[in-house]
Amino acid sequence: MTELPIRADLIGLTPYGAPQLDVPVRLNVNENPFAPSEQLVAAIADAVAQTASNLNRYPDRDAVALRTDLAAFITEEAQVAVDVNNIWPANGSNEVMMHLLQLFGGPGKRLVTFAPTYSMYPDYCRDTFTEFQTVTRRDDFSIDAELIDEALALSPDVLVFTSPNNPTGTVLDHHVLDYVLDKFEGIVIVDEAYAEFRPAGQPSAIEYVQNHPRVIVTRTMSKAFSCAGLRLGYAVAHPSVVDACQIVRLPYHLSAVTQAVASAALAHWPELLAHVELLRQERDELAIWLADHGFQVAASGANFLMFGTFADRHHVWQQILDRGVLIRETGPSGWLRVSIGTPAENSLFREALLASDID
Amino acid sequence: MTELPIRADLIGLTPYGAPQLDVPVRLNVNENPFAPSEQLVAAIADAVAQTASNLNRYPDRDAVALRTDLAAFITEEAQVAVDVNNIWPANGSNEVMMHLLQLFGGPGKRLVTFAPTYSMYPDYCRDTFTEFQTVTRRDDFSIDAELIDEALALSPDVLVFTSPNNPTGTVLDHHVLDYVLDKFEGIVIVDEAYAEFRPAGQPSAIEYVQNHPRVIVTRTMSKAFSCAGLRLGYAVAHPSVVDACQIVRLPYHLSAVTQAVASAALAHWPELLAHVELLRQERDELAIWLADHGFQVAASGANFLMFGTFADRHHVWQQILDRGVLIRETGPSGWLRVSIGTPAENSLFREALLASDID
Repeated sequence: MTELPIRADLIGLTPYGAPQLDVPVRLNVNENPFAPSEQLVAAIADAVAQTASNLNRYPDRDAVALRTDLAAFITEEAQVAVDVNNIWPANGSNEVMMHLLQLFGGPGKRLVTFAPTYSMYPDYCRDTFTEFQTVTRRDDFSIDAELIDEALALSPDVLVFTSPNNPTGTVLDHHVLDYVLDKFEGIVIVDEAYAEFRPAGQPSAIEYVQNHPRVIVTRTMSKAFSCAGLRLGYAVAHPSVVDACQIVRLPYHLSAVTQAVASAALAHWPELLAHVELLRQERDELAIWLADHGFQVAASGANFLMFGTFADRHHVWQQILDRGVLIRETGPSGWLRVSIGTPAENSLFREALLASDID
Repeated sequence: MTELPIRADLIGLTPYGAPQLDVPVRLNVNENPFAPSEQLVAAIADAVAQTASNLNRYPDRDAVALRTDLAAFITEEAQVAVDVNNIWPANGSNEVMMHLLQLFGGPGKRLVTFAPTYSMYPDYCRDTFTEFQTVTRRDDFSIDAELIDEALALSPDVLVFTSPNNPTGTVLDHHVLDYVLDKFEGIVIVDEAYAEFRPAGQPSAIEYVQNHPRVIVTRTMSKAFSCAGLRLGYAVAHPSVVDACQIVRLPYHLSAVTQAVASAALAHWPELLAHVELLRQERDELAIWLADHGFQVAASGANFLMFGTFADRHHVWQQILDRGVLIRETGPSGWLRVSIGTPAENSLFREALLASDID
């Protein structure tokens, strides 16, 4: 490979991705542990059969039906009235982020976010030639006005907030967003991949998009919707942002099959979001259990918990894996992250952790 | 939209895409006119139902099963033994091209191709900050050694050959590829989106990939496979190129549903390629008919014909559209392009053209 005339900054890099190991309990990539119901599987198969009978034709390039369905869901979930013109879907929220950085990033532009955070952001920047910089969060992983000032001193073109943050689970205080919007003229992206798991009563940043064309919220069907295998992410934004995304998207970027499956899943959202409620309860119970057993736990509004700290986290991770439970060795030094599974899976995790030799 | 801080070179651009008009006969975007059979639709629905029952999990990031199926097809179709390590799939061949230009293009790099050709190449270059230049084809749209010298004088990093070329239909003479490989050290991409329609006996450039890591052939399931709605393109290349693509792909770029549907369609390839044979016959008959009626026709190895020339091609295009047949106003001045439809659709096109007032 090194004999190929590859872009100099890519030589020697390895592909991004968590280890994919075949173990009984997978709590490593924040998947939803609940598979789609038989009814939903049947509805998906029906929708695809209808679509497949016309598969020789290109898909609806503008995905109008799917965007309408996503808008209806968001209007209900976020309690903010949005419509088809506010929705920009793509193959995973990472393709959405690529579109946004192609528009608002690029050579000479700078993205600033708050570490520790999602490990793909530097890759999006690398792929769009956008400069990547971070400001370190407080010890409790929160962001405050002083950190915003520190970020703005870096002269960002794009500010990214992840709420709930991955891997810490931290929910963004919207007073911080208000402060940013007062002082910053650039683009503000709020990555809400895990927003459906946020605490009850906490608003979504979607409440800003109608009045602030510079605020863009990204969401995904991978987590709350149990559709990680579908790869459907979307932005909720001012119509002018959606119009701009049309310029940089590859034509027909979203397959007819993806559009059909996503709409079928959206039609079952009450069933899917019932699981979200159960996962939130499991999360809160596991957080208490971890604290009761002397671990530090980061306050989480997502479907995972970051806990620690360990002198040798790899050793702890390996012992838990040896007992058939795969969690993630990620986040700041000494911490580990566990996705919330079914009640049975969470029990197995607790047993595996208790049985581990922790220095 | 212009109030947003968008990359300066994108301001004022409009999204790429052919007009999507609702007319009885659509011969404008080189779709395959034959819909998947009932058997294939059922197989696709079954495959998706199986996949959907596990949709809460991320897809196989490396798409091993699909790549194995694609390799088996290529081994048969191109009569070149390739395996899973030679195949790189993505969401349409345009995402494949983006991966390749992220690897081998970028700021300071230059792509050269031969005009007239596929209108998306400048967009791929714009999106990857690669410089785009063209050399003009001969009057019969062919490429010869002298034009190669002209292209090499532009100091390309990447040379793109489209064979059969879109919109002209021209098939590349492989003596030209031999000449290029003797004189050029950079990356050679051969876009074979329409290769399955090439004349019998004409080899695919895939015969080069095992011995030339710098030769990359792209293919798609949109045309011959009647799967334009699926968005599945792939590169056939040396394993070192496939390894490199892993670095720039977004993780989990290919959904579990896409992988399942594509494999189901590949299992039906003899049925699907029988339609290709019929379309080739229809193309050759229509080419003769057009010539017999005094039109110029570019020699085509694809599922479309470029014909002309007209003093006012838009007027001719509009008259044909008024009779319910949508063709494409593309290619060099004075020419029009028609996709090959079913025999009945091709008859309607002939009637519409004959009834048109041509200056």
